[in-house]
Amino acid sequence: MGLRFEIVAEDPATGARAGLLHTPHGTVETPVFMPVGTAGTVKGMTQAQLEELGVQILLANTYHLYLRPGHEIIRELGGLHRFMGWPHPILTDSGGFQVMSLKSLGRVTEDGVWFKSHLDGSSHFLSPERAVEVQLALGADIIMMLDECVEYPSSHEALHRAVKLTGRWAARAKEKLSALSSQPSASQPALFGIVQGGIDKDLRRQSAEGLLELDFEGYALGGLSVGEPKAEMYDVTEYTVRLLPRQRPRYLMGVGTPEDLVECVARGIDMFDCVLPTRNARNGCVFTSQGKVIIKNTKYARDESPLDPACECPVCARYSRSYIRHLLVAGEMLGAILTTQHNLHFYIDRMRKIRQSLMFGAFAEFHSRVRAEP
Amino acid sequence: MGLRFEIVAEDPATGARAGLLHTPHGTVETPVFMPVGTAGTVKGMTQAQLEELGVQILLANTYHLYLRPGHEIIRELGGLHRFMGWPHPILTDSGGFQVMSLKSLGRVTEDGVWFKSHLDGSSHFLSPERAVEVQLALGADIIMMLDECVEYPSSHEALHRAVKLTGRWAARAKEKLSALSSQPSASQPALFGIVQGGIDKDLRRQSAEGLLELDFEGYALGGLSVGEPKAEMYDVTEYTVRLLPRQRPRYLMGVGTPEDLVECVARGIDMFDCVLPTRNARNGCVFTSQGKVIIKNTKYARDESPLDPACECPVCARYSRSYIRHLLVAGEMLGAILTTQHNLHFYIDRMRKIRQSLMFGAFAEFHSRVRAEP
Repeated sequence: MGLRFEIVAEDPATGARAGLLHTPHGTVETPVFMPVGTAGTVKGMTQAQLEELGVQILLANTYHLYLRPGHEIIRELGGLHRFMGWPHPILTDSGGFQVMSLKSLGRVTEDGVWFKSHLDGSSHFLSPERAVEVQLALGADIIMMLDECVEYPSSHEALHRAVKLTGRWAARAKEKLSALSSQPSASQPALFGIVQGGIDKDLRRQSAEGLLELDFEGYALGGLSVGEPKAEMYDVTEYTVRLLPRQRPRYLMGVGTPEDLVECVARGIDMFDCVLPTRNARNGCVFTSQGKVIIKNTKYARDESPLDPACECPVCARYSRSYIRHLLVAGEMLGAILTTQHNLHFYIDRMRKIRQSLMFGAFAEFHSRVRAEP
Repeated sequence: MGLRFEIVAEDPATGARAGLLHTPHGTVETPVFMPVGTAGTVKGMTQAQLEELGVQILLANTYHLYLRPGHEIIRELGGLHRFMGWPHPILTDSGGFQVMSLKSLGRVTEDGVWFKSHLDGSSHFLSPERAVEVQLALGADIIMMLDECVEYPSSHEALHRAVKLTGRWAARAKEKLSALSSQPSASQPALFGIVQGGIDKDLRRQSAEGLLELDFEGYALGGLSVGEPKAEMYDVTEYTVRLLPRQRPRYLMGVGTPEDLVECVARGIDMFDCVLPTRNARNGCVFTSQGKVIIKNTKYARDESPLDPACECPVCARYSRSYIRHLLVAGEMLGAILTTQHNLHFYIDRMRKIRQSLMFGAFAEFHSRVRAEP
């Protein structure tokens, strides 16, 4: 087994914990935020800049890499770590979320999912087995099972069907990985199961119980942050986490805002990924200690202060709001580069502070301070 | 006077020399290549990356900054160095070249140039005095006089008229700078004159003689590399340089290829600027020790080697041709970022090697080695 998870601190009052996730490409300190490197690159960032920011693990999208440049090319070139020049841990998703959300969906069958490429319209088929195969070719440290993602809101019937199908796909993914990993030359990534069930606690319980029987190396919560009320998301996260084994890492997929990170760590989550810091950055929305700032706003045209006066990132040390606004208005690449660097720093720094507060037994204090923020 | 030029080595066989250009924002080692930061940013590069590459001086375009964000805003914010977060030397052009080449030209009169903004079509007027005023607001270390740029080929009459008009504008620019600089609070940039005359040596001589009477702090060669045969460009450069005082820096505007840098240093040029390394990079054309490489070419899809196996830049140390090709094909920002970083390294490194060869009395050897390259 390539993955080992070690809990190094726990908050007695909440479910929050700090851990070490040992992977074949290094150790990740949890709780951790994973920036999204869709096509094998975090948009606008060099790998050296990610290292400087303290990024410990990246998420890459199997769907995008499968279509372009193709997982076989990446396998030939020695896998994604080598291809990207990123010798640190990588997690790949299964491709299912993109397939089911990019409107490229043909149909979901018992066997898998038919979809059309957003690049050229060509038809492709993704099954639980195929998702494992493609991810093995990419060579990530942590891979995700193919699950059925349903939108919010969905009928109980649709949710129930997705939970059951996801359960059967989980077993098939597990079996495929065992079969492929028994080959002597095979790499051995950790496979995570994905709990579905929307905001229906009974379905979440059924989903979790089914996965637990298969004994995954980690468990993800899927189908959240898809439009449900925030309170529901927190509540379902808390409920679901309690069903999961203490000694396995827990990953809340596609979440979230800076506030969500703290709230969901408090509910026992160890891993997060989200496009919010990077996508918002490109749209000129930056996270600061005083809340979000829409930097293209005319009022910043003559503003000499940094994006966030309380921030210690390289962007805030060197550049003004006026300059960054100018770059974004002029459509200059550097605008998106600087806002991305800043936003990622904000997320990574928040995680670092959460973890430190856990290590020092001061999480409750940190939690209430964040809650009081604008 | 803010500028001091010191010659530290000369090649006895050619006109090549190595110097130190002392400016209010630091010393530049010449010969030097100035990357183009059109809108106050070298497209795709952070200022920290430029520093790491060893960039010593940037060129910024007055035309672009005047239109957006506006020179008055930049003045208010403490000038371009502070606005950009670039505490090192900056040279600004006069805006004339853009005005006359962006097809935005209304008309050239004795007084100056009417032009339309490429952003919103609004009408603007640029005179020799106005070009000085705007550049003073930007606060560069070296500013350029407004000259009349004519296309290649042009009639003798058009060239002659441009030389005469440029001569009269030179005097007006000089006078305006003296008047403004006599104000106690004024910054004092160095003003360079621009020799025009196309490939007509007699006109070049007339143009240079007129400027010499005004005693500029540096002399630029304009109107070259605009379509004339390469041999003519070298020949006119050599001829014109011989008319200029030894103790003043000489700047060949808008030049050129890696080969041009060596050939024109050999003809006595100290300073260069060109969009070639940065623009080519964005189009996927990289400079290597083996010549140009069009990296989007299918044959690089599985190529694990760096852009240039002989290169020591951070890009070649970390990334493969296959990865960079993938990024460019996928339209990912990182593709342009990495090719730009590499191409700028190639130019800066070439200049460093030229200078070293001059310092060690080995320029002739270096020159013939470069001539033998692919």
